[in-house]
Amino acid sequence: MPFVHSPAFLLPDPAAASHLPLMLLLVFGTAKILAELFEKIGQPGIVGQIVAGVILGPSVLNWVQPNEVLAVLSELGVMFLLFRVGLEVRASELFLVGKTALMVAVGGVVLPFFTGWLIMIVSGVNRIEAIFVGAAMVATSVGITAQFLGAKGLLQERASRTILAAAVIDDVLGLLVLAAVTNIAEARVNILGLVTTAVVACLFTLGIAKFGSSALKHVVPRIESKLSDREARFNLAIVFLFALSVLAVYIGIAAIVGAFLAGLAFSESVDRRVKDLTHGVTEVWVPFFLVGIGLQLRVSDFAHPWILLLSLAVTGAALITKLIGCGAGALGLGRKDALRVGIGMMPRGEVGMVVAQLGLTLGVVQKPVYSVIVAMAVATTLLAPPFLSLAFRGCTPKTAEEEFSLA
Amino acid sequence: MPFVHSPAFLLPDPAAASHLPLMLLLVFGTAKILAELFEKIGQPGIVGQIVAGVILGPSVLNWVQPNEVLAVLSELGVMFLLFRVGLEVRASELFLVGKTALMVAVGGVVLPFFTGWLIMIVSGVNRIEAIFVGAAMVATSVGITAQFLGAKGLLQERASRTILAAAVIDDVLGLLVLAAVTNIAEARVNILGLVTTAVVACLFTLGIAKFGSSALKHVVPRIESKLSDREARFNLAIVFLFALSVLAVYIGIAAIVGAFLAGLAFSESVDRRVKDLTHGVTEVWVPFFLVGIGLQLRVSDFAHPWILLLSLAVTGAALITKLIGCGAGALGLGRKDALRVGIGMMPRGEVGMVVAQLGLTLGVVQKPVYSVIVAMAVATTLLAPPFLSLAFRGCTPKTAEEEFSLA
Repeated sequence: MPFVHSPAFLLPDPAAASHLPLMLLLVFGTAKILAELFEKIGQPGIVGQIVAGVILGPSVLNWVQPNEVLAVLSELGVMFLLFRVGLEVRASELFLVGKTALMVAVGGVVLPFFTGWLIMIVSGVNRIEAIFVGAAMVATSVGITAQFLGAKGLLQERASRTILAAAVIDDVLGLLVLAAVTNIAEARVNILGLVTTAVVACLFTLGIAKFGSSALKHVVPRIESKLSDREARFNLAIVFLFALSVLAVYIGIAAIVGAFLAGLAFSESVDRRVKDLTHGVTEVWVPFFLVGIGLQLRVSDFAHPWILLLSLAVTGAALITKLIGCGAGALGLGRKDALRVGIGMMPRGEVGMVVAQLGLTLGVVQKPVYSVIVAMAVATTLLAPPFLSLAFRGCTPKTAEEEFSLA
Repeated sequence: MPFVHSPAFLLPDPAAASHLPLMLLLVFGTAKILAELFEKIGQPGIVGQIVAGVILGPSVLNWVQPNEVLAVLSELGVMFLLFRVGLEVRASELFLVGKTALMVAVGGVVLPFFTGWLIMIVSGVNRIEAIFVGAAMVATSVGITAQFLGAKGLLQERASRTILAAAVIDDVLGLLVLAAVTNIAEARVNILGLVTTAVVACLFTLGIAKFGSSALKHVVPRIESKLSDREARFNLAIVFLFALSVLAVYIGIAAIVGAFLAGLAFSESVDRRVKDLTHGVTEVWVPFFLVGIGLQLRVSDFAHPWILLLSLAVTGAALITKLIGCGAGALGLGRKDALRVGIGMMPRGEVGMVVAQLGLTLGVVQKPVYSVIVAMAVATTLLAPPFLSLAFRGCTPKTAEEEFSLA
């Protein structure tokens, strides 16, 4: 029927333009349908959405391939998600669990890294690939746990606060591990650079967390009163979100950590309206983040028994080492909360995949090991939510005030 | 400082990933700042946002170039915008002004097309380029007028309804003009194809407008009651928005017409909550649509006096022919409303540019004429809102219920 190029918009390639709505429909629609189905059988909807990605992707239907547009939409999804989570959290409450969170993060870096490295060395891959697998096992995808906790109204739990604080520290530590690993891969060592990065990243994170909130409480109403924009406060929040994401990337930590810090700093300056508007954005784009993770999996890559076996071993180790490493750090909160924290730190999601892709780009990780890392990242992300459901059983969700929608 | 690739996300190219937050900040921040400045000097904020694009783009700073990611974000912006506008309008009210709207649309197609064609023939370009300029002058960018009317709380005015209805008809007619023009450019004529497209496009548009609303009023509550999703109604609306956009593209009309029809059909099935969540999405992405228009302009293309002169002539003709052609069709509403309708149909925005790009892609439009069309599209889009401000002076905005934010 469409025998003319549809006047669909300014895209360089008209074909791509007419595919955009179709891609939006496929990803969003499938994610929501599978989320419903999973909830119906008592499983977290978030898992259904990742499975939607596996089904749509090269593993099953091959209707949607990972592409730049999807990558952007999923980064937007997780940026707004972390911002939204930050809005629900008071920085002061994170500092209350600060010491525990530090121990959780350190435990969750050391144990997974060395275990991953050891497994790979034993299985005979080269030294640098082994180090990359270790680094990928360090990464925590806080987006997954945050979405789960938000959807279930559990963000106000002490264990949840500990997970969020630990995930921020984990990202800073992960940055340093990745920097060191890259140094090794490129056979140059830049100690001064490493130290500078560490110092700047810590100053940025601690500075925003400590002083951001009170500074904004002071400044935001003043700026707002000078603006004629009817949604001035929301738009200020969005500018601040983008600005801190830029700063975070510039420093070398993830954009989503900047987004989370922006939310944290804004959390005492927002009203219901700002939260609702932000919520609209997350509702639309978070499915793209979740589907984007599932899309990365290629089942056909695991036809070789060696890769399958290695993937199982690495995934098992990834689950257990975070459980023990992070759980041990949180033992001071009691065994129940320690278990919750350990499980909450399990998903590697998109962060683990970034490490794998970096290795691929640098030419030091080969395709089979890359597949192993992706499998580990997807599997840990799929398995954590059901375990979290069990671990948090008995907690009463907070009022709808703090709840997100169903993931 | 960032001496490692930032773990910024699943992008194929890590460099692109670290640019994403920066691009978001530049586009969104500059748009909002210029909107404020323009409002301060009594001009519509929407013009400030388009000017932001001109400033950021190749004409002045060259900090942001048109690219696929921006194109997608701006298409998302205008899709959600038209959906949001549709939510504020009752289809029955559009049918009330249907006859007038049809005359407005026809007048706004015939007069601009032949005037544009004539100017180009007289100035000596070839026959096919002249036809493309005529076709580009037919296009109406309803997004611009809709955003203006929404921001000013004027969507409930009779003239506004007429503009919206006429713009939908205009898109269907524009589709046929473009199809015919493409036929001519490719030296093949497919009468059956043209007729089929016309019939299908009319059936789709009229069918959704006539029966969509009552069908959804019946169906949506039933589906919603079966879902466990806390934002089920909003998510159903988004799925419907994407689905109608896909259908529209498949039929050959613009995705945004599908989005508008989706909003129209949903308008009697939504509550405040759905509107607020949708509003959050439009607040964030509409600036990308507006900046995206300004970005297309390259001031350096007009160094040649002939191109400058031709641009001025075509722009002047584009303004006057819509004013007269559309205004004449609306004379039945009285001279005041006829003037408003004529001005409201002036902006060519992104739709005019799509025609130009199609001509470029088919190899029948050359770079100088392309620049003329872009200049006409940007200039009509910049000039319409201030005129609209004047024409609608004295109208009291409706309650905040129907108002958007400041454009």
